[in-house]
Amino acid sequence: MTLDALDTPALVVDLEALRANVVAMAATADAAGVALRPHAKTHKSLHVARLQLDAGAVGLTVAKLGEAEVFADGGVEDLLIAYPLVGSLKLARLVALARRVPRLSVAVDAIATAEAISAAVAAAGGIELGVRAEVDTGMHRLGLAPASDELVALAQAVDRLPGLRFDGVMTHEGQAYQARDEAELAAAAATACDAMVRSAEAIRAAGVDCAVVSMGSTATARFAAGHPGVTEIRPGTYVFNDRSQLAHGSATVAGLAATVLATVVSRPSAGIACIDAGAKALTSDRMIVRDAAPDYGAVAERGWPVVRASEEHGLVALPEGAVVAVGDRLAIVPNHICPVVNLFDAVAVVERGRVVDHWPVAARGRMT
Amino acid sequence: MTLDALDTPALVVDLEALRANVVAMAATADAAGVALRPHAKTHKSLHVARLQLDAGAVGLTVAKLGEAEVFADGGVEDLLIAYPLVGSLKLARLVALARRVPRLSVAVDAIATAEAISAAVAAAGGIELGVRAEVDTGMHRLGLAPASDELVALAQAVDRLPGLRFDGVMTHEGQAYQARDEAELAAAAATACDAMVRSAEAIRAAGVDCAVVSMGSTATARFAAGHPGVTEIRPGTYVFNDRSQLAHGSATVAGLAATVLATVVSRPSAGIACIDAGAKALTSDRMIVRDAAPDYGAVAERGWPVVRASEEHGLVALPEGAVVAVGDRLAIVPNHICPVVNLFDAVAVVERGRVVDHWPVAARGRMT
Repeated sequence: MTLDALDTPALVVDLEALRANVVAMAATADAAGVALRPHAKTHKSLHVARLQLDAGAVGLTVAKLGEAEVFADGGVEDLLIAYPLVGSLKLARLVALARRVPRLSVAVDAIATAEAISAAVAAAGGIELGVRAEVDTGMHRLGLAPASDELVALAQAVDRLPGLRFDGVMTHEGQAYQARDEAELAAAAATACDAMVRSAEAIRAAGVDCAVVSMGSTATARFAAGHPGVTEIRPGTYVFNDRSQLAHGSATVAGLAATVLATVVSRPSAGIACIDAGAKALTSDRMIVRDAAPDYGAVAERGWPVVRASEEHGLVALPEGAVVAVGDRLAIVPNHICPVVNLFDAVAVVERGRVVDHWPVAARGRMT
Repeated sequence: MTLDALDTPALVVDLEALRANVVAMAATADAAGVALRPHAKTHKSLHVARLQLDAGAVGLTVAKLGEAEVFADGGVEDLLIAYPLVGSLKLARLVALARRVPRLSVAVDAIATAEAISAAVAAAGGIELGVRAEVDTGMHRLGLAPASDELVALAQAVDRLPGLRFDGVMTHEGQAYQARDEAELAAAAATACDAMVRSAEAIRAAGVDCAVVSMGSTATARFAAGHPGVTEIRPGTYVFNDRSQLAHGSATVAGLAATVLATVVSRPSAGIACIDAGAKALTSDRMIVRDAAPDYGAVAERGWPVVRASEEHGLVALPEGAVVAVGDRLAIVPNHICPVVNLFDAVAVVERGRVVDHWPVAARGRMT
């Protein structure tokens, strides 16, 4: 099947670029001697997960219990749920999941959250769950301050709680996306890594093992992997990449493995092409850069921005002299690929210009 | 089942509020003597569609062929696809759909688009498709200028093309959402309605019947319904409403029929609660108002804004003295409900505080 036989809007994945991205990140981790535990929230796909594990990933990171359940169903044996699980409904599911996943771990940032998990696990019996303390290295979303008394106390509490095994510390250093250039990005990564190494040392000084020092973001992965004391990286976006990663130098144009194929449905004015990909195909996410432009993606290779998006209409700003007609197809590079994938039930997999498969976005819709 | 038995994040629909919204808009249309053709892109649900049709809606508006197919499967007999259908794949599906939907119509804004549809319909034989010309009354998305020569020429072309029946004119007057207050909103609605009535008159003056003059937006519906010469309204959001509609006075707090139920998963600082609803549950859409604040929704009744959203984390800014603990549940009113519904496979239907049903978002994922 050719690309022409694909109706639009469609999420198209270039298999060759995807494979190269998977292999390159595995090589980065391997060369640095750190574990690679990719965040599967980007792809939510068993097919992509299999590529990652085959290339040497130790396991997967997920954001949701529902995602973990899907990957467990798919046979993945090592899963980190990098999210505090709260409430009896989730804890009952966590216990059931722990019974069938050989290596399951979770992140927590509060003793009370760990205590509730411990109570559920201990009541079930026969389970040991890995736990990581989430550190806030500057994203200011959740997590405890690096090397703080609260962090050490959490590690100590987890260490003595029944059914739990303290594995180490993790962070999402998303603040690095505010870097203006490569030097600032490297510095932000180093600062975050230092904070994590200090955190691990403080925990060890208190007599608690802290084997894992885990960093997570595609933009910082190439810096974090080689930072002394870091033991694991958890990039997600690198499998597909997007405009934000291009801007941060963490992807090249050749590494853009996912685009939204759209059709021009109207030419309302000389400078505008209206395409059938709006916010329900591209999302309303801006680029993850400092002072992001208010746009919704850009045409691949040409760079023409999608300057407005209604739910089902995208308006592409054309340069003078651009020849674009109703019926033409344009590949759009999204600003942020993760929520875009989350809108599609399946991706069309393309190899050398031909659609060779359709992969379900298996964990999409698993809201809880 | 109580709300406590619902895992989060969940999209919760209050049945009583939904029914009241459906009845109130039907009464508005009825009192004004105009047809009501709700836009189903908001709910994508056969259950909600049935409520609307039972309350007197003449049919539904949809944005996509895939949505039309779902509603046709559900037995809806009058559908307007308010979107220019382009390309042979879509035209083949359109022809198949026309064979099984008693009253099917489409919108176009170019003669070439109409000609391609006519060619497909005429080649199939035995089908007559209703066509509306899309007018740009100020949204500047697509559509032809009001009462313009191009618009009249399009109507004339459709009128003579085989297999097509020119039904009238339609617009989405989304520019009205830039109004600062009720007076500006009323004025924007009146301006758009006048432009549409003039458009119909220009077409009639050229000897082409133009029965339908159709306006579409929840914010303007109460003004447009009573505007002389308008024959139809196509509001969508009114079934659920959202923060944007509240701001425009087109909904009251009692009319907020859909909220995202979330759990507090962390209290990272005194002024912040982190909830399990981020951009993958609330979207990144701003409010549809002039100079929208950079937030992602607000806690129902309390008004506390969701000031930041990662994919799975929302940060709620708490006022001094607010008592919020990990495990607490908060109902979030989205900025824009339509793309939020599009993220969920089903909505939890609540009546008098109890979950009485789960309705599939049947047309979600029908990207094409």
